Amino acid sequence: MSSKRESYMRWALALALEGLGRTSPNPMVGAVIVKGGKIVGEGYHKKAGTPHAEVNALEDAGSKARGADMYVTLEPCVHHGETPPCVDAIATAGIKRVFIGTRDVNPLVNGKGIRALQDKGIDVSVGILEESCVKLNDRYNRFMISGVPHVTAKTALSLDGKIAVATGESKWITNKECRNYVHRIRGTVDAVMVGGGTVRKDDPRLNVRLKNWHGLMPVAVVVDSALNIPRSARLFRRPKQSCIFATTAKAPASRVRWIEKNGFTVMRCRATGSGRVFLPHMLQKLGELGITSILLEGGGELFSDFIKRKLVDHMVVCMAPVFIGGGGKDFLPGIAIPSIDKVVKLSGVSIQRFGDNFVIEGSVVRGGGGVHRNN
Amino acid sequence: MSSKRESYMRWALALALEGLGRTSPNPMVGAVIVKGGKIVGEGYHKKAGTPHAEVNALEDAGSKARGADMYVTLEPCVHHGETPPCVDAIATAGIKRVFIGTRDVNPLVNGKGIRALQDKGIDVSVGILEESCVKLNDRYNRFMISGVPHVTAKTALSLDGKIAVATGESKWITNKECRNYVHRIRGTVDAVMVGGGTVRKDDPRLNVRLKNWHGLMPVAVVVDSALNIPRSARLFRRPKQSCIFATTAKAPASRVRWIEKNGFTVMRCRATGSGRVFLPHMLQKLGELGITSILLEGGGELFSDFIKRKLVDHMVVCMAPVFIGGGGKDFLPGIAIPSIDKVVKLSGVSIQRFGDNFVIEGSVVRGGGGVHRNN
Repeated sequence: MSSKRESYMRWALALALEGLGRTSPNPMVGAVIVKGGKIVGEGYHKKAGTPHAEVNALEDAGSKARGADMYVTLEPCVHHGETPPCVDAIATAGIKRVFIGTRDVNPLVNGKGIRALQDKGIDVSVGILEESCVKLNDRYNRFMISGVPHVTAKTALSLDGKIAVATGESKWITNKECRNYVHRIRGTVDAVMVGGGTVRKDDPRLNVRLKNWHGLMPVAVVVDSALNIPRSARLFRRPKQSCIFATTAKAPASRVRWIEKNGFTVMRCRATGSGRVFLPHMLQKLGELGITSILLEGGGELFSDFIKRKLVDHMVVCMAPVFIGGGGKDFLPGIAIPSIDKVVKLSGVSIQRFGDNFVIEGSVVRGGGGVHRNN
Repeated sequence: MSSKRESYMRWALALALEGLGRTSPNPMVGAVIVKGGKIVGEGYHKKAGTPHAEVNALEDAGSKARGADMYVTLEPCVHHGETPPCVDAIATAGIKRVFIGTRDVNPLVNGKGIRALQDKGIDVSVGILEESCVKLNDRYNRFMISGVPHVTAKTALSLDGKIAVATGESKWITNKECRNYVHRIRGTVDAVMVGGGTVRKDDPRLNVRLKNWHGLMPVAVVVDSALNIPRSARLFRRPKQSCIFATTAKAPASRVRWIEKNGFTVMRCRATGSGRVFLPHMLQKLGELGITSILLEGGGELFSDFIKRKLVDHMVVCMAPVFIGGGGKDFLPGIAIPSIDKVVKLSGVSIQRFGDNFVIEGSVVRGGGGVHRNN
């Protein structure tokens, strides 16, 4: 019986994932409606501003929803957002029991959705495949709890941990399949971020370049305390409003004017003692703009600043089976861990292989040892 | 029909592997005898100085060998070594056809074994599963062709390619399962090698520490141009004759005397311009001692010297999902690759997972770009 319930929830999870990259700032949610041991309706949240998973599933089930069970990955909403509360729709349709994967950490919902269903006489169970249902929305959860975007740091390394040879040349350490995988990740985040140095060196476009890809395009965020970005940068050929330049009061007024005149955003942030962009302030401001997730793509100094401040949630390390040697550029030049028990650790590690390259991913363990500066 | 032959050869390959770590300086070899579609005899080379695979298989088959086929992974020997020539035993037993995986690169055998069988009226086919049969003995082949030992470099790295934190502390980056795997590799080589710095820092024993392990113990080789090894080093508690100290004329005579008096070998090698042990000379001398394979275990300077000289055949990289930062110790401090097309590459890459650690292995691609020094 329990495994039957899990299999319905697993189906709801699979449906939820269909919304990957399109639901922000909302969570991904999937729902199935079951009656007489049969799935009679299914739905998922397709895009922010459109109906929620529950409503889509109810519509799919039609009159069969009456007296049926609903399996939904996340606690149904009780508040009026861009769409009416799901708990009302569930009750109106005559659903008898609701199986919920996990509570919604959104303070507007958290527990209230469950109580509202119960108040309407509906039987509620919470916690089926809870771990998977929480993990599904780790970015949304991070944003909802902290107000700052979930940060995934992605890097391409040689086996000996170098991002480039001494000259800075890094094209290409990893293979095309690995790079395509990174483009797929870009298609799932609200913003792709690099430091000004990476713009000057690599002149990236930071867009999603995949065949037959029709998702949303992430915003590009460039972090540069002095706004020292060449006017010829390819980023300036992106659509207007698709680029944010995070900088400090140090940025010359003429550069700010030029960028704004060209239709891009300049975001002034507080500076650190050494004159760099104060990252917690920047992330807070990006969160206020509705950016819930970021893919951080370099370079080494920006990676180091993020790690020092413990602002990285997830790491994606692409690796090629090559060695560059100590003369190459380090991934984290600004970091010096004082002892082995204080290393930055990943948990929930996965490995994928792409030809002779591979990608290692994991969540950064919080509170796992101090990070000391060496500069 | 051909796939039947391959399946017999696959069985012979599996038998051959039973000799792993015990056949040096001989190759691993397996043989099966087939008559009327049935395996009537099987054998492998168990240990140098004992009968070869073919003879063991013939003995197992007894009188059933008459008129039968033999599948053997390597060309049978024709010379009188520690045991009589296998081709004679094969002919005497009345084997009608011999299927050989690959030729023996040993100049005493190469092609001569095949011709000798044919001269005795036996039908010979060569090249069944040849790639696997060659790969089985990559260490032996390397040694036979070059006269110098096959070198496997093993290291334990953080994801960002560091072997230790700034203080040199490296215990333990990787987990117990990874370290056990390295002990299993130690059990398959003739020698385990480290630099003098690693002896001073880690005081290793360089033996095989595995439960229920009854194989041969590799010799320990310490490379130190000035023979600056503390008398308290745990290596000096190893059995007599089980340690070789490779050094230069710079080594003080008193230290040489003390080491030799304690039953260990001092091997004087030519020095490089900068006074370090000239590795090609050292490897040649180790080869002359019958050491066909080496597991190189550090430290960074010795790894760099081996890579610079293109003396590494195979790499084993153990990795833990942690980051140490640019302040840590590099795997290859003495190497600076000038451009991405000149990186040191691995081919035939495999990945194994041990808990949240993993081991990446591959063969160093020869002639794949130059390595330039940065010191």
